[in-house]
Amino acid sequence: MLPKNRVLTPGPTALLPEAQIAQAEAAMHHRTDAFIELFQTVRKGLQQLFKTERPVLTFASSGSGGLEACVANLIQEGDKVICVNAGKFGERWMKMNQAFGANVIEVKVEHGRGVPLAAVAAQLGMHPDVRAVFVQGSESSTGAVHPVQQIAQLVKPMSNCLMCVDAITWIGAHEVRTDEWNLDLVVCGSQKAMAMPPGLAFVSVSEKAEKMLGERKGNRRFYFDFARELKNQAKDQTAFTPAISLIAAAAASLKWILDAGVDSLTRNAFELASMSRAAVQAMGLELLSDSPSESVTAVRVPGGMDSGAVIKGLKNQFGAIIANGQDDLKGKIFRLAHLGYYDYIDTMGLIAALEVVLAEAGLKFESGAGLKAAQAEYMKLKA
Amino acid sequence: MLPKNRVLTPGPTALLPEAQIAQAEAAMHHRTDAFIELFQTVRKGLQQLFKTERPVLTFASSGSGGLEACVANLIQEGDKVICVNAGKFGERWMKMNQAFGANVIEVKVEHGRGVPLAAVAAQLGMHPDVRAVFVQGSESSTGAVHPVQQIAQLVKPMSNCLMCVDAITWIGAHEVRTDEWNLDLVVCGSQKAMAMPPGLAFVSVSEKAEKMLGERKGNRRFYFDFARELKNQAKDQTAFTPAISLIAAAAASLKWILDAGVDSLTRNAFELASMSRAAVQAMGLELLSDSPSESVTAVRVPGGMDSGAVIKGLKNQFGAIIANGQDDLKGKIFRLAHLGYYDYIDTMGLIAALEVVLAEAGLKFESGAGLKAAQAEYMKLKA
Repeated sequence: MLPKNRVLTPGPTALLPEAQIAQAEAAMHHRTDAFIELFQTVRKGLQQLFKTERPVLTFASSGSGGLEACVANLIQEGDKVICVNAGKFGERWMKMNQAFGANVIEVKVEHGRGVPLAAVAAQLGMHPDVRAVFVQGSESSTGAVHPVQQIAQLVKPMSNCLMCVDAITWIGAHEVRTDEWNLDLVVCGSQKAMAMPPGLAFVSVSEKAEKMLGERKGNRRFYFDFARELKNQAKDQTAFTPAISLIAAAAASLKWILDAGVDSLTRNAFELASMSRAAVQAMGLELLSDSPSESVTAVRVPGGMDSGAVIKGLKNQFGAIIANGQDDLKGKIFRLAHLGYYDYIDTMGLIAALEVVLAEAGLKFESGAGLKAAQAEYMKLKA
Repeated sequence: MLPKNRVLTPGPTALLPEAQIAQAEAAMHHRTDAFIELFQTVRKGLQQLFKTERPVLTFASSGSGGLEACVANLIQEGDKVICVNAGKFGERWMKMNQAFGANVIEVKVEHGRGVPLAAVAAQLGMHPDVRAVFVQGSESSTGAVHPVQQIAQLVKPMSNCLMCVDAITWIGAHEVRTDEWNLDLVVCGSQKAMAMPPGLAFVSVSEKAEKMLGERKGNRRFYFDFARELKNQAKDQTAFTPAISLIAAAAASLKWILDAGVDSLTRNAFELASMSRAAVQAMGLELLSDSPSESVTAVRVPGGMDSGAVIKGLKNQFGAIIANGQDDLKGKIFRLAHLGYYDYIDTMGLIAALEVVLAEAGLKFESGAGLKAAQAEYMKLKA
């Protein structure tokens, strides 16, 4: 059979065709009314996606650039910060804060677990002078979610402490209420729930964060400057040349999301994740996480099996690219994506392909068991 | 008549259709052989464009991100640097260096002039301890070029001083020989001679610059880290998620440039610039620069005339977007672009449109004088 090439990873995710085409079409200068109109649509759309009335800044960078912007603007040498480290991206918050000279208090969490609220509460109790808590909404390296809303409740009364959330694989797959939940900095990348190519980072900045901006002049920075961008983007412009074609793609993506409704997008991820979890468990496999994300499902392969072989089989036989584990988890898990532009047919098709590949890799299970379980889950959720 | 919308600015420049379409087509994950192959082509192509055998790093950012990377990696608080300031972009080098705590020695140049070599030599003589010289190849705000090759000759024997060139509107319009001329850091953006959308910055890093990297740990940075990217990009990967669709556009753009030849691209800009200079002078207008760039021609409008009216006329009557002056020069000049994907027909068409608009704005000249002069210049250059 002729395989069709499909990206089925938790980022970059499958591309929305309208967003692909919007890039090709975008041929404008950025200091024009046409760009101002486009960027205004994007800014308003992002506010709806983030559920905030505060500005959501756009940077020409990968998501990590957005993370760096949070640290570079608000943390300086010697500042005490709490970082939840439950995987590769928690580690990135730590490394970034360390690179900027922060005194990092690590809340280390076993891979696959969500952070216990009490662990964060204990550190906040011991260190009332922390300037920020850094956490992932969804730690995509392990497929686990953290209790962000509850942590934010603890941070809210601390007038000099900010709640900073890497929402890169969280927003669009889980409910996120930036304003209502008092999330001060929320970072998103373009290549996840928005189903468009990488190259843009989005960061919402709360009133509390904006007030605290002026306090940290110690860090040297120019490109990722919140104050300058808040001023420019309020006028639907960016300080430096924007990535015009990607902003056009973002407009197309946001149109798709808002036409469907943000809550429908998160519901979609939840349903696909539920189907996928049911399927792999029916095949006798285990989830890595006991606090599973709706954006990505990390599945353990049995001892002695290399998840790389499963991933290779999917690629060679079916043209489907799924994600391996990263660092220590490489070879031990594979990850199925649900956030963004995926549907029932994609998911059932992938499960059907997984059944073939897993059986060939020696896993014993009743053929069709995964499909049957996923379908049953679908019918249950639909009812 | 129905106007056709055209971007005729010195950046973003007119888009190469192959680069536009490549973005729409690019649908791959970046940790795959397909991406490695694509990125290898881009890396090799950039080396040919820069005329270097050293690595040319790619960042997901606007060109200013590439400029910041140079400062953030090599300059720290208290370092003495020389900045040539001949316009808006010279000013940007200064502001960036100041943001990073450098002790900036400004070589101020009147708008429109190229920096006299002696002015830089004098500062280098007085300050043998400067760590870097920052200059534009082409200062696009005024359409002037600086004697970069000669300045680099002065910097070469200084073992602790780097030659840093903003080549954003220089490369592809002027000959640039990165290795032969001992240019240590050369920065380019995607939306100029490469005729593709903004969103990528490119920076070549000389052996001397790489050796000096380890000496400056004072600056806090994570995203724009040369050492990390040199390591990753040597393996055709990037540390953070790359802007995949823009990298696909870069591959298409570089294919076009290398098929034509880098020297043909610069010759093309030179010929279009020569035609444009002849045309505006034949209409009785003056050039702003006595050291004119081949990438952009800045033209003064007579006292009492607002260049904004000329620009507006071109847009409303002919759909053509050209650039105004920036900051102090706004209203006093207009700028015609030659770098990238522009040809004889574009240029003659624009001159023909300019004649109509300038006559309507009250400029007295013989109708067709600009066209005739441009055509004569073309015939002369062709001979």
